[in-house]
Amino acid sequence: MNETALKPQTSLTDALRREARAAPESGIVEAMNYGRDREGMIPLWAGEGDLPTPAFISEAATRSLAAGETFYTWQRGIPPLREALARYHSTLYGRPFSPEEFYVTGSGMQAIQIVLAMVAGAGDEVVIPTPTWPNAAAATGIVGARSIEVPMTFGNDGWSLDFDRLAAAVTAKTRALFLVSPSNPTGWTASREDLHALLALARRHGLWIIADETYARFWYGEGPRAPSFFDVMEDEDRVLFVNTFSKNWAMTGWRIGWIAAHPKLGQVIENMIQYSTSGVAQFMQRAAVTAIERGESFVAHLIERARRGRDVSCDVLAATGRVRFARPEGAFYLFFNVDGETDTRRLVMRLIDEANVGMAPGTAFGAGGEQFLRLCFARNPEQLESAVRRVASVLSQRN
Amino acid sequence: MNETALKPQTSLTDALRREARAAPESGIVEAMNYGRDREGMIPLWAGEGDLPTPAFISEAATRSLAAGETFYTWQRGIPPLREALARYHSTLYGRPFSPEEFYVTGSGMQAIQIVLAMVAGAGDEVVIPTPTWPNAAAATGIVGARSIEVPMTFGNDGWSLDFDRLAAAVTAKTRALFLVSPSNPTGWTASREDLHALLALARRHGLWIIADETYARFWYGEGPRAPSFFDVMEDEDRVLFVNTFSKNWAMTGWRIGWIAAHPKLGQVIENMIQYSTSGVAQFMQRAAVTAIERGESFVAHLIERARRGRDVSCDVLAATGRVRFARPEGAFYLFFNVDGETDTRRLVMRLIDEANVGMAPGTAFGAGGEQFLRLCFARNPEQLESAVRRVASVLSQRN
Repeated sequence: MNETALKPQTSLTDALRREARAAPESGIVEAMNYGRDREGMIPLWAGEGDLPTPAFISEAATRSLAAGETFYTWQRGIPPLREALARYHSTLYGRPFSPEEFYVTGSGMQAIQIVLAMVAGAGDEVVIPTPTWPNAAAATGIVGARSIEVPMTFGNDGWSLDFDRLAAAVTAKTRALFLVSPSNPTGWTASREDLHALLALARRHGLWIIADETYARFWYGEGPRAPSFFDVMEDEDRVLFVNTFSKNWAMTGWRIGWIAAHPKLGQVIENMIQYSTSGVAQFMQRAAVTAIERGESFVAHLIERARRGRDVSCDVLAATGRVRFARPEGAFYLFFNVDGETDTRRLVMRLIDEANVGMAPGTAFGAGGEQFLRLCFARNPEQLESAVRRVASVLSQRN
Repeated sequence: MNETALKPQTSLTDALRREARAAPESGIVEAMNYGRDREGMIPLWAGEGDLPTPAFISEAATRSLAAGETFYTWQRGIPPLREALARYHSTLYGRPFSPEEFYVTGSGMQAIQIVLAMVAGAGDEVVIPTPTWPNAAAATGIVGARSIEVPMTFGNDGWSLDFDRLAAAVTAKTRALFLVSPSNPTGWTASREDLHALLALARRHGLWIIADETYARFWYGEGPRAPSFFDVMEDEDRVLFVNTFSKNWAMTGWRIGWIAAHPKLGQVIENMIQYSTSGVAQFMQRAAVTAIERGESFVAHLIERARRGRDVSCDVLAATGRVRFARPEGAFYLFFNVDGETDTRRLVMRLIDEANVGMAPGTAFGAGGEQFLRLCFARNPEQLESAVRRVASVLSQRN
């Protein structure tokens, strides 16, 4: 709601809707702007690897473009992509899925924006365990709802989610629970028991669960992927899944993702797509089909690389004796704190200056993460090792 | 705001936010679904021509893809595209523009969604002259605001906007005035005097103007483009422009557009992009740069084709003696009514069945358009002529 009197003398920005003005600037971008373009800089700040999209995927887009597939297309996604997503999920989760459960979006971020607008508006609340990727909370604010952060705790057993604290955060205004698992930035991953408990809480209060399972494949435990709400839910549970082609197939720049949801929600989702971006370019969707159909060995390569990146990051930083972290179970970030360093924004800038390595300050990830730094280890392991050795060397000097 | 008790027994759709459930299904898509895939069907229902994107534009995307430009990029758009947009506007509007005034979006529709969310939220109102393209009103509803339709009148002088009626629609809750000029679907185009009057109204009440000038180039009057708010505004007037690459360069399927706004709004717009789709693929933006830099003769070809399409549509349908319309001054639609036909939804279906020509019912375009049909004439003039002859023949039979 606008509170400002929209008088002519009001400044341009003050005449905007309050929630738009209040949307926060990304705390990651600030570090990137500080360090961008330095000679020899190794950038570990973004949630992005160092490999471009494989040519066999890009070439599918090229062929589609050359064939003139440049017209408006299906709002829910082209049928071959929805079918490919159904097959992909059937293989990964070991049960049948229907193409009608999948909706193609212009990025995982748009999937989040759409499902948030489907469940929450002015006066509503969305409960979000933190530290977490900040965009969900920011998008919650833009739809006019309030994000309620529930900080996880970091102890000797790593990160843990306190279910009593979570339950206590639920009010009559709560509409949804937003969970990123495996977590960006902590690497914490909900166990099957955690997911059961979260689902029970949601059922008890009639909440929606927004399940961001972007990093499901980047999982260093048993089996081919992390535990999922797909493992524990019933057909009509209120779970909305958001996901992306960005990480598994090195397609960050493409902006293509998907929603998985009950087909009963199909018309509403189609409308939300129609009135936000009106669909995704057909030639992009052809590339996404190819990614799913022919990309498994590439995905395996990325995961193996991330596992090595995780190990080298953990080993080298642990050896400084100043660094604490929980060894990530999933995703591709190391979230660590440094003994004696409380101003992590300043520490990030110092490490840009002195180690020529870019990371993201924990202050960007909400309550409970302020004392940490996030390092993305989805990168060439040799280059990554040289980056973490430079960081370790700077940190050791201070001891 | 959610009104439903979110009890477990509530149905999935009833558990959604009311404004999401209320988003209307597109009235154009209904006709398309009825007629799609019929042998020999000539589709004039969508706002889209029959030419694919020219190869020289698509190939710029292909080169960028092959060069591995598949990473995250600038939220506001790549600098070369913002510079190209500034040059394009400088040429078209005859005064200097800065790249800082332009923001690349994932479609003109997303530009609309973003500027709406910047100025209006729950409890607010947006005034929209109708008949008009329905998506702006639908997007207004999704942000939680109310769209207030002000029907234009259709008389012997064509369509006209009643400024007293418009002023009477403004309340204390009004935040913005949304104007599509040249108009989809009527072809009405605001004169410079109209624009002055609208701006004066907006200034008086401190309103934002959202100026959808998508069809600025498809203009059949004097000069290279339609009158624009750029012609009448001062630097800090509250005008937000939304536009798209879709129509001028036959790029409907790409989903790429732009916002033009004061640089003071830059950080807010960047944040809105970050929290909705987080930018537009770099390889798409390369194609857009090429469209602007090398596309002028193609644009001229499309405009000339549309002009011929307009003339043949008007001539053939007028000859039936049953059809009334205002000869469009801009855009690429003929919006006409048929004597004695009051149920235009049914008439559209009948013309699909009997003429094998697809059009959109006026009911899809809000108050004042119910008695009309919309025909898109951006098409091969020979094929278009055969389509309108078939329509004329069916309509003549009934007389």
